[in-house]
Amino acid sequence: MKALTYHGPGRRTWDAVPDPAVVDPEDAVVRVDAVTICGTDLHILKGDVPEVTDGRVLGHEAVGTVAETGPGVRTVAPGDRVLVSCIAACGRCAYCRTGTYGQCTGGGGWILGHLVDGTQAEYVRTPFADNSLHKLPAGVTDETALLLADILPTSYEVGVRKGEVGPGDTVVVVGAGPIGLAAITTARLLSPARIIAVDLSTGRLEAAERAGADDTLRVADDTDTAIRALSPDALGADVAVEAVGVPESFELCTRVVRPGGRVANVGVHGRPATLHLETLWIKNITITTGLVDTSSTPLLLRMVADGQLDVSALVTHRFGLDEMQDAYDVFADAGGNNALKVALFRT
Amino acid sequence: MKALTYHGPGRRTWDAVPDPAVVDPEDAVVRVDAVTICGTDLHILKGDVPEVTDGRVLGHEAVGTVAETGPGVRTVAPGDRVLVSCIAACGRCAYCRTGTYGQCTGGGGWILGHLVDGTQAEYVRTPFADNSLHKLPAGVTDETALLLADILPTSYEVGVRKGEVGPGDTVVVVGAGPIGLAAITTARLLSPARIIAVDLSTGRLEAAERAGADDTLRVADDTDTAIRALSPDALGADVAVEAVGVPESFELCTRVVRPGGRVANVGVHGRPATLHLETLWIKNITITTGLVDTSSTPLLLRMVADGQLDVSALVTHRFGLDEMQDAYDVFADAGGNNALKVALFRT
Amino acid sequence: MKALTYHGPGRRTWDAVPDPAVVDPEDAVVRVDAVTICGTDLHILKGDVPEVTDGRVLGHEAVGTVAETGPGVRTVAPGDRVLVSCIAACGRCAYCRTGTYGQCTGGGGWILGHLVDGTQAEYVRTPFADNSLHKLPAGVTDETALLLADILPTSYEVGVRKGEVGPGDTVVVVGAGPIGLAAITTARLLSPARIIAVDLSTGRLEAAERAGADDTLRVADDTDTAIRALSPDALGADVAVEAVGVPESFELCTRVVRPGGRVANVGVHGRPATLHLETLWIKNITITTGLVDTSSTPLLLRMVADGQLDVSALVTHRFGLDEMQDAYDVFADAGGNNALKVALFRT
Amino acid sequence: MKALTYHGPGRRTWDAVPDPAVVDPEDAVVRVDAVTICGTDLHILKGDVPEVTDGRVLGHEAVGTVAETGPGVRTVAPGDRVLVSCIAACGRCAYCRTGTYGQCTGGGGWILGHLVDGTQAEYVRTPFADNSLHKLPAGVTDETALLLADILPTSYEVGVRKGEVGPGDTVVVVGAGPIGLAAITTARLLSPARIIAVDLSTGRLEAAERAGADDTLRVADDTDTAIRALSPDALGADVAVEAVGVPESFELCTRVVRPGGRVANVGVHGRPATLHLETLWIKNITITTGLVDTSSTPLLLRMVADGQLDVSALVTHRFGLDEMQDAYDVFADAGGNNALKVALFRT
Repeated sequence: MKALTYHGPGRRTWDAVPDPAVVDPEDAVVRVDAVTICGTDLHILKGDVPEVTDGRVLGHEAVGTVAETGPGVRTVAPGDRVLVSCIAACGRCAYCRTGTYGQCTGGGGWILGHLVDGTQAEYVRTPFADNSLHKLPAGVTDETALLLADILPTSYEVGVRKGEVGPGDTVVVVGAGPIGLAAITTARLLSPARIIAVDLSTGRLEAAERAGADDTLRVADDTDTAIRALSPDALGADVAVEAVGVPESFELCTRVVRPGGRVANVGVHGRPATLHLETLWIKNITITTGLVDTSSTPLLLRMVADGQLDVSALVTHRFGLDEMQDAYDVFADAGGNNALKVALFRT
Repeated sequence: MKALTYHGPGRRTWDAVPDPAVVDPEDAVVRVDAVTICGTDLHILKGDVPEVTDGRVLGHEAVGTVAETGPGVRTVAPGDRVLVSCIAACGRCAYCRTGTYGQCTGGGGWILGHLVDGTQAEYVRTPFADNSLHKLPAGVTDETALLLADILPTSYEVGVRKGEVGPGDTVVVVGAGPIGLAAITTARLLSPARIIAVDLSTGRLEAAERAGADDTLRVADDTDTAIRALSPDALGADVAVEAVGVPESFELCTRVVRPGGRVANVGVHGRPATLHLETLWIKNITITTGLVDTSSTPLLLRMVADGQLDVSALVTHRFGLDEMQDAYDVFADAGGNNALKVALFRT
Repeated sequence: MKALTYHGPGRRTWDAVPDPAVVDPEDAVVRVDAVTICGTDLHILKGDVPEVTDGRVLGHEAVGTVAETGPGVRTVAPGDRVLVSCIAACGRCAYCRTGTYGQCTGGGGWILGHLVDGTQAEYVRTPFADNSLHKLPAGVTDETALLLADILPTSYEVGVRKGEVGPGDTVVVVGAGPIGLAAITTARLLSPARIIAVDLSTGRLEAAERAGADDTLRVADDTDTAIRALSPDALGADVAVEAVGVPESFELCTRVVRPGGRVANVGVHGRPATLHLETLWIKNITITTGLVDTSSTPLLLRMVADGQLDVSALVTHRFGLDEMQDAYDVFADAGGNNALKVALFRT
Repeated sequence: MKALTYHGPGRRTWDAVPDPAVVDPEDAVVRVDAVTICGTDLHILKGDVPEVTDGRVLGHEAVGTVAETGPGVRTVAPGDRVLVSCIAACGRCAYCRTGTYGQCTGGGGWILGHLVDGTQAEYVRTPFADNSLHKLPAGVTDETALLLADILPTSYEVGVRKGEVGPGDTVVVVGAGPIGLAAITTARLLSPARIIAVDLSTGRLEAAERAGADDTLRVADDTDTAIRALSPDALGADVAVEAVGVPESFELCTRVVRPGGRVANVGVHGRPATLHLETLWIKNITITTGLVDTSSTPLLLRMVADGQLDVSALVTHRFGLDEMQDAYDVFADAGGNNALKVALFRT
C-alpha cells in the first residue's frame, strides 16, 4: 500500500510500504477512507519528536472501514465504518481504569503515527481496537467525523473541561487555529457570557467570529487591558485557553485571568515559558495541561450526529488520498493558504 | 501603646503609637495577648511589599481579648478571647459570597499589617470583626491558637486541599519550615501513603520527621530520582507542595509529579520560575496558587481543641511582648537559631 | 400602608398595617414596585406552614426602590432600584461562610413572608440588606427581574446544578409549572441532548415546548417506558428534576433515571414518598433536595440583562398592586386560568 | 470438583460439579485458596434474587492461584496469587470507560455467584480476568486479602467516598456488621471528628469500638436526639452511612443528618423505605446508593500491604473448604454465634 513515511527531519515520502496486519488479538486493520494532517505531524517532520524513527508512517486521525479484527476484538467487526481516534487504551492499567486513556501505561496512549505506524496510509493497524475505534452513525459524514479523531475532544477535554468553563464565564481563547476554533465551538456548549478570541491573523479572527467568538482581538501592546476591559469589574477572564503552543501566548493567559481563574493549556510546546509566580502566588489561579483522553468522543459524536455541534467550517481544503504530498504542502503553509484543516479522501 | 512599626526598608521600631479605636461599625479593637512573626514580615522589611508604607504597624497573626466592638459586630463581645485571623472578609462581595475571603474586593483580604495597622502591638483594630475573629474554646492555649492565625489554614487550604491530597497518595513537601511542617501535619489527616519532605537543612528535616514525614531528603543532584524511586511504579508523586518560595523548589515540584499529579504552590515568591511546558504540556498536571481564605479555620480550631491536630512543636522560641525586637532578631536568622515560629506574650 | 396579611388557614386580607421601619443596622426598607405570588404562599394559606402566624404579611419576591437603610448597610442606598431576593443571609454563620445562604443559622434564610413580614405590601423591611438585595441594571424590566427573586435561582441551583446537568445529557423535568419551565430554560444553558417535559396538563406541556423542551409527555401508564425509549440505549435519563411536590412525581423520577443518574428534587412536599430501595440500592443514584441559596442570582441577573436568558413567557397575568386579592384568586386557580406567574405593579 | 450449589430457596449442596474451563479469551481459571460468605449469599438462599437459577455455584469473594488463562489475558499468568474481586469489568462499555465497573453493560458487573458460577468451589472461572483479578503482594495473607474482595471496597466506595467523609466530620454508621465495621475503619482514613456507631447488638457495638468508633449507641427511642447531641451545635451528622439494609435504619439516617448532610446507603434492601420529603425537601440533603466498582481495590490493597489499614478483627471463624456447610450454618446465625466474617481455606 501507499503511505506517508517519515525519513528524518524534513524528509517525507508517499511510497509503497507493506500492508499492515493483525499482530495482537486486540488489533484491527482499518481501510482509511478519510484522513487529515495535524500540527503535530509538522512538529515531527521538523525533528521535534525524537521518538519517531525513520520509516514511521505518520498520522493519528482517520475515518475508515474495518477490514480485519483480531480474536479479542468485541465491539467492531469487518465492514463497520469507524472513527480512528488519536488515542488507544489498554483498558487495564491504573490510568485507563479512571478513563485517563491519554496516559495509558499499558501500551496505549498516543501511539499512532508516533510509536507505531499511523493513519496517513491506505490501511492502518489499530491496537486495542475496542478502546480506540468508534462506530460511526450513518448521518455523520467522513469529513465531519475526521474532526472527532483529535481536535474536537482535545479542545473540549483539555481546554473547556479542564478550564471548567461554565454559564456566565468570560473565556479567552488564545490562538484561532483549528484547536482554538474547536475550543470556541465547544465552550459555547456551557453558555459562557463572552468568548474573546485572540490571534495574530485577521483571517483567523474572522473564522473565530464565525465559530462563535463574541469579541476578537489582534495581539497588540494593549491586549491585556482590552481583555480586562471586556470582563466583569475588569478583574480578568474566568478561563484562558492556550491554543498556540508558544511561551508568549501562555504568558498572556496567565496575565489576563482574574484571581481564582483557570488557565487551560492545550498547545503543544517546544520551549519553556516564564511563570510569574511573584504576582501569581497570591491569585488563586489554576493551570492545567493535558493530553486528550478521548473520554468525550462518544458524547461529541452524538452531538455532531444530532446537529448540536456544527464544525463544518473547520475543513478548508480537500484532496484525494494520493495527493498527500500536496496536502502537506498546503497545510505546512497554513497562513499563506488560509488553511485550517485539510482533509484527504480515498477516491 | 507600643507597636512594631515599619519605617522603610530595613527600619523597624518598637515605639509608642496612638491607641487604635473603632472606626467602622463592624470594627473590633482587640488587646493582644500573644503574637507571632511571619516570613512575610521579613519580606516587608526588605522593602519587597511596596504597598506597606512608612509608619505601618506590622503583623497579621494574634490571639487576644476583645476590648471594644462597633455597633455592627454581632458574634463577639468585649471580654471574648479570640483568634485574630490574617484574613478579614467583607462578607458581601462576589468572592466572599463563595467563601473566597482571601480575594475579598470589599475592603477585606490580607489587610492587617499590610494596608492597615497590624497585630504586633498592644492593641489592634480588626475590620469586619465578625468574619476575621474566631472565639477560642477554653482548652486551646494562646500559643497553639497563634498557629491558627495563618500557617495552619494556609498550609491546609493552599497546600493540602488545593493539592487534593487523598488516601494512599505519595506527597512531596518541598521546604520544612513552619508552613511545610504544617503542611505535613495537615496532609496526614487524609492518610497519604507516604509524605516525603525535602529541604536543605538537616535540622528542619529532623523536624519534618517529627511532624510525620515518612521520608526526608536533603536536596542533592539526584533528588528527582530519589523521589521517583519512592513513588509507586516510579511514576512520581501524586502531589507536590511548594513551601519555600523560590524558583528552584517550584521547578523541582513540577519535575517530580507523576502524569496527572498536582503541584500546590504555598510559598511566597519574589521572582519568576521557569515552567517547562515542553515536557509538561502532555502530562495532565495541575498547578495551583493561592492566598488562604481561612475557610478552614473553624474546622482546624475544633480539631486542635479536640486533640486531633498537634502542632505544639512549631513554636521554638518564646518572648515577652516588649522583647519584640529580640524576637525579630532571632526569627530573621531562623537558620542560625534553629528557629521555627517565635511567640510573644503579654506579660 | 396596605398589605396582604395572613389570618389563619384560608383567611387573607388586603388591609392597612403599620409602615415598616429600619430596626436593625443592616436593615433596609424597600418600596415595592412589583411583586408576585408563589405556590408556597398558597401552601401557607392552607395552613401547611405552621410557623407563619396570624397577622403576618406574606410574600418573598419583589422588585422595588430602596427607601431607607440602616447604618450597617454598605452596598445599596436610598433610591437604588433593587431585587428583593427570597433569601436573606447573615453572612457570618458556618452555612453563610460557604455560600449556603438558604440554611443560614444567623437569622437569615427564607424569612420574608414566613418569619418576618414579607413583600406583598407597599413597603417591606429587608433584614441583612447587603446579602438579600441586588442592584438592578437599567435594562432589566421589573417584570423580568421579579422572576429572579425565587423561581429562576431555585430551578437553576436546586434543579440544574444539583442535578449536574451537562452537555449531551438526557434530562427529564416532571412538572411544567413556573419552576419546571424555569428549570427547562436554565438546563438549556448546559446543552443537554434532550429535555423531556412531563405534566398532566396539555397547556403546560405547550408552554414547556416554548421554553425549550425537546419532548413533552402527558403522564400516562407508559410514561416510564416512553422516557426510557427517548434515552440512549434506553437506560433512562441522566437527570430527573422533580418540580411538582407530590410523591407520585418524585417516585416517577426515581424510576426513570439510569444507573448512575441524579434525581434533583425542587418541589415543595407536604407528604412522604416511597423510596424503592429494593431496586435502587444497586443503581448508583443520587437524590438531592434543597432550598435555594441565591448564590446564582448575580449570574442569572447578568445573563438576563445580556439577553442570554429569556424568561418573558413566564408571566401570564398582570395586576395593579391594589388588585392583590384578584391576583390571588387567579393564581389559586392557575389551571382554570391557564396562569403561570402573576405580576402586580405599583401604579 | 466440589462446589456450594444453589437449588432453589433454602436448598444448598456441597457436591461434585464439573471443573470450570476457559471459555472466553479473557477468562482465567483460578484455584480457590480462601473464600468467604456474604450476606448477599443468604439473601440468594432465601430466594430474594430471582436471577440466580438452580445449579448455580454461589460466592463472589475469594483468594486463589491462577491455574489457566485465555489468550486475551495480559496482566496475570498461571501461578500468580490473586484476589478474585466481586466485580468483573468488560473495560469497553460506557460505564467501564468512566471506571463505573459495577454498572458494566458489556457482560461484567456483579456476575460471580449470580449470573455465572462463583467462588465457593475448588476452582472458579473469572471472566474479564484482567479487570477482575488483582495480583497479591507477598506480605498480605489470604485471610486479609479476602476482605478486599467485597466488603472493604464496598464500604469505602459506597459509604465513605459517596458520603464524602472529610476531616472534622461527624459520621454516623448505622449497622456494625462486617460492612459497617469496614466503613468505620475506612472512614478513619479521612480524619472525621467523630464516628458514631449505631446497632441493636451490644457485641457488635463493642466490635465497632475496637474498629475505631468514638461513640456507640444501642438503638432506642432517643437515638435521634443522642446523635444530634453528639454533633456540633446539635445540627446533626455530616454523613450517615446505612449499613444494614432495612427501612428503619435508612429512615434513621435521613432523620439525623444536618442540613447539607449526606446519606450514603450501602445496605442491600429488600423492601421500600419511606422518604419524608415533607421535612427533607428544604434541607439540602444528598442521598446516594451504589454497587461497588472496585476502583479502590488497588489502593486499599496497597494500604493493607503497607499496614495503613488493619482489618484483622473482621474474621471471627475459620474453616476448611470442605466444611462449607458448617461455615454457612455459623454465618446464617451470625448473631447467635457472635460471627462477623467466616473464612474457609483450602487444606
